[in-house]
Amino acid sequence: MIDTKLGNLRRTHYSSELDPSKEGKEVTVMGWIISARGHGNISFVNIRDSQGEIQIVAKAGDCPDELREKLAKLKEHSCIGVVGKVKSSSKAPSRVEIIPKELRVFSEVEKIPPFEPHAKTVKNIDTRLEIRAIDLRRDVLQKIFLARNQVLKSIRDYFYENSFVEINTPKMIATATEGGAALFPIFYYNKEAFLAQSPQLYKEQLTMSFEKVFEIAPIFRAEPSRTNRHLSEAISIDMEEAYVDYNDI
Amino acid sequence: MIDTKLGNLRRTHYSSELDPSKEGKEVTVMGWIISARGHGNISFVNIRDSQGEIQIVAKAGDCPDELREKLAKLKEHSCIGVVGKVKSSSKAPSRVEIIPKELRVFSEVEKIPPFEPHAKTVKNIDTRLEIRAIDLRRDVLQKIFLARNQVLKSIRDYFYENSFVEINTPKMIATATEGGAALFPIFYYNKEAFLAQSPQLYKEQLTMSFEKVFEIAPIFRAEPSRTNRHLSEAISIDMEEAYVDYNDI
Repeated sequence: MIDTKLGNLRRTHYSSELDPSKEGKEVTVMGWIISARGHGNISFVNIRDSQGEIQIVAKAGDCPDELREKLAKLKEHSCIGVVGKVKSSSKAPSRVEIIPKELRVFSEVEKIPPFEPHAKTVKNIDTRLEIRAIDLRRDVLQKIFLARNQVLKSIRDYFYENSFVEINTPKMIATATEGGAALFPIFYYNKEAFLAQSPQLYKEQLTMSFEKVFEIAPIFRAEPSRTNRHLSEAISIDMEEAYVDYNDI
Repeated sequence: MIDTKLGNLRRTHYSSELDPSKEGKEVTVMGWIISARGHGNISFVNIRDSQGEIQIVAKAGDCPDELREKLAKLKEHSCIGVVGKVKSSSKAPSRVEIIPKELRVFSEVEKIPPFEPHAKTVKNIDTRLEIRAIDLRRDVLQKIFLARNQVLKSIRDYFYENSFVEINTPKMIATATEGGAALFPIFYYNKEAFLAQSPQLYKEQLTMSFEKVFEIAPIFRAEPSRTNRHLSEAISIDMEEAYVDYNDI
């Protein structure tokens, strides 16, 4: 029986930490399957973790038969953990392959997704959003999220280095912050309230006590979208500073 | 005429950057007045910036008469900028005082606030919230906000160091995330929607593509408050990680 529980098993190496210098070492790797090919006595399974790819090679005689047969049957996107030995391989990603000794199947895919995230042609957005978690395994989307993460981090680093104080202002408010923008009404218990379309008035007031403030948070604008670059809900990067004018900004 | 505009004037030193080693140097300092005393030919004005206190001493003969007279008339919480010379003074904060040469009054207080934020006795919360920006000049509240800023920064540093990816999940959602919690309904154009009470389902899905994710963002729960430690809107620190169990958390 192939175990399906994590138990005490923990990843010892990310794909990025494997290279031929680990030859012969026993490692535990985890990820989801991106390709699986069985050729009778040998199965090749490539998995992906957050850092990259790892190739598992299960050959009759080198690993338990039950494990090899199970590996050969697994569909793409199944989520597995493998304990095995590192072996140099000039053709494999990171120039190593793993000879498996133990297999865990955390999540076994029964039905293949309506599209293949690693294919070059991309399905329409509605199909993709239906299985967004799988869609987000696509390389380009991975990189967009990581770049976004890095951009937010760099902006915050700037604020911290320049003594801005992080604030969190209310998103449920009693009246409009600025004229012009349409608001989403909320039922606030027995009263009417609105979703904040900007922290503007709050941040201005807070400069009176903290001089420099910033907030990175959602804003809400009830303006129906006419393009695919407009959202009713967005993340706003707000800053406000005392004793400066627009030239300093 | 005392100028009221910032113009090209910029702070050269925060209070924390002043000490007797700057003796004789011309500096530009800015802040709001926390105490002002005029004794005929001499006026003492203490201002506060985000780092601490600075004492301004305007003595007849040492500075323009118009400036000294204006300084003597300013009420507490007025916001000013001063260009002047640093002079050692063993009794003053930072062990220096400033002999003013030029004064700007950015915001002159006409009516004193209904309470003094630096007084030891604190008014009831309703009075304080009416002029919250001034209330937040109180030392203890300054420190709470700065500590909160530091706590958020430290938590994010942990997430960054451990390869968590920052995510921002929708706050306007079509259905409840978890049973149990009451939701605030919104009018989402012509449909009913709700404010998210948790990013739980989103972050779980996102671990399928990013392994480790975090979000620090508002959550909304329509549960009427029975204590003063409960808010309908709060900031939630959410993380989710793949390939671990509750022991790792």
